[in-house]
Amino acid sequence: MTYSRRQFFGDAALAAAGYTGLAAAAGSASADCARTFPIPTTASPTLQARIAAPGNPNWKRLPASAEEWHAIVSEAAAGSEKNVAAWSAKYGISIREGTLGGVRVFWLAPKSLSPRNRQRIILNFHGGAYVYAPGRSGLEDAILVARAGFRVVCPDYRMAPDHPYPAAIDDAEAVWRALAASSAPKHLAVCGTSTGGGMTLALVHRLKAKKLPLPGALWAGTPWSDLTKTGDSYWTNECADKALVGYDGILGAAATLYAAGHDMRDPELSPVYGEFGGFPPTHLTCGTRDLFLSNTVRVQRKLLDAGVPVELTVIEALSHADYVGLPESAESHQVYGDVAKFFDRHLAV
Amino acid sequence: MTYSRRQFFGDAALAAAGYTGLAAAAGSASADCARTFPIPTTASPTLQARIAAPGNPNWKRLPASAEEWHAIVSEAAAGSEKNVAAWSAKYGISIREGTLGGVRVFWLAPKSLSPRNRQRIILNFHGGAYVYAPGRSGLEDAILVARAGFRVVCPDYRMAPDHPYPAAIDDAEAVWRALAASSAPKHLAVCGTSTGGGMTLALVHRLKAKKLPLPGALWAGTPWSDLTKTGDSYWTNECADKALVGYDGILGAAATLYAAGHDMRDPELSPVYGEFGGFPPTHLTCGTRDLFLSNTVRVQRKLLDAGVPVELTVIEALSHADYVGLPESAESHQVYGDVAKFFDRHLAV
Repeated sequence: MTYSRRQFFGDAALAAAGYTGLAAAAGSASADCARTFPIPTTASPTLQARIAAPGNPNWKRLPASAEEWHAIVSEAAAGSEKNVAAWSAKYGISIREGTLGGVRVFWLAPKSLSPRNRQRIILNFHGGAYVYAPGRSGLEDAILVARAGFRVVCPDYRMAPDHPYPAAIDDAEAVWRALAASSAPKHLAVCGTSTGGGMTLALVHRLKAKKLPLPGALWAGTPWSDLTKTGDSYWTNECADKALVGYDGILGAAATLYAAGHDMRDPELSPVYGEFGGFPPTHLTCGTRDLFLSNTVRVQRKLLDAGVPVELTVIEALSHADYVGLPESAESHQVYGDVAKFFDRHLAV
Repeated sequence: MTYSRRQFFGDAALAAAGYTGLAAAAGSASADCARTFPIPTTASPTLQARIAAPGNPNWKRLPASAEEWHAIVSEAAAGSEKNVAAWSAKYGISIREGTLGGVRVFWLAPKSLSPRNRQRIILNFHGGAYVYAPGRSGLEDAILVARAGFRVVCPDYRMAPDHPYPAAIDDAEAVWRALAASSAPKHLAVCGTSTGGGMTLALVHRLKAKKLPLPGALWAGTPWSDLTKTGDSYWTNECADKALVGYDGILGAAATLYAAGHDMRDPELSPVYGEFGGFPPTHLTCGTRDLFLSNTVRVQRKLLDAGVPVELTVIEALSHADYVGLPESAESHQVYGDVAKFFDRHLAV
């Protein structure tokens, strides 16, 4: 089984393994979600199987202490680390640890690099609601960007509960500064999925404010652009999304945990509220069932209104970020194929 | 009140007027839809008011005879004709009746035409599930394209129940042949919303098959690309979409009526099943609540896979085609503004 969302919000394997250490165990997602839909015949067989399986059973969990957060994050990370080991072997991706701008990073590279991609580097921020996916467990998305033919650098940025805002975005800035000091920004793209997509946009808001050089292109995959529960699809896609399921559980709790009292509408937390003039060309991805559909299209509108070249691809029947969790699905190959073409069009050779 | 969806599936005004001539009156949409959602603060005030109003109460109607179809279409047309008169006056759009390729058409033009748009003509197919919006009642979308600065020609194509498939697409082809005989195709775009978006795509399938010249650009607004109930959002957006509400009522009945026994998966009826190689650059629009979200993104994927330049804009919280019914909303101006920019980029001057 290739599916894993452990690095975001745990999965059924935790329950199957008898994991009961948290304050609120939710049972099956269907207990909280009366809405059910037929399996879409328009999805790939792999995605159909994913949709037929139970939704994320842990979305309602509410860890009551830092210890409980650490416990759920560690359990989830164990599963993702297995994926990282398996996928990097399968796709021939080398992983090397290092430090950049004082931040621990991982350098990823595919076995062969096309001449066009020799000078290009993709800075990837992992997802995980500012709490999940520490260390190597945060490399799933990065491996799939590398599989698409690119060198990737992935920071192990600091996260809540130990390091609330602005720790993550401070680390993002430090890594960018170091990267942009050794490579021309026109060869550099910044990207990420979910929280990583939000950080991609938030970082550019900060770089603009500080008049620092901007990357040549961005990819924000189903970005967490609004940490407040604002945006229609937080309601209309509740329960249709099998990965996130809904906001009013661990997702909202993680937002509160990372913001730690700071205004969540600050563009460094919820980048949709920033000004987008001067942004680099941006590619956006989301799914029709995605809880973050509104998070994504609201960013598209801001970019269009600011005159920024933006393209949006919406994937039929896909829940939040399942292109990461289902690397062998047709949908995953579509998403990373679109991204590779976009980077190739917009980054200098 | 500017909202009207009469030309598609009737509206509350019909019920308010005591209209009771049909076999199955559905009462309010909420009687069939348990799902309710809060009013999205991310929508414009005009769209918020639309969402707060009752959904289309007539979506479950099932006319039992040709006479009943004619009755509901005539009632709906009366409302749309009033909009056409009011909007054309308000936006300064002239309307002139004529014949093209043996088909009755309407020529629309804005008061002033920019030099870049002098030679450009937009062929617009109205929506209405192959039953609604005959004559001048079919000009609402065309007026809004003209408002965006273009000359528009809008055929009064034949429809069900009197003229089932292939009457509508035959008329579309005849008009295109005549238009392309007098203007260079690079100056011509084809577009439409809903059924008109489906016809736009179906026409190009036919033109390719017959090796006829293709237009310079297409806009398919929330296209009815699959007349069968296939595609995830027919379920996931049921009832979230306040305009169409669901498939299993007058929409599905109209599909059966127009297909009249022909295979609905024929690309001239459900263009998503065709091959898209060689299509002109295509702009797609839909809403996050749109019952046709899947109809739209499935077409995007086919176009991307075929290597066709395609751009997709998804509008926050919008139900099916409400950019036509709410011409003063911010969302409507966004949609037609995006379309105008797209046509300007892709049509020859």
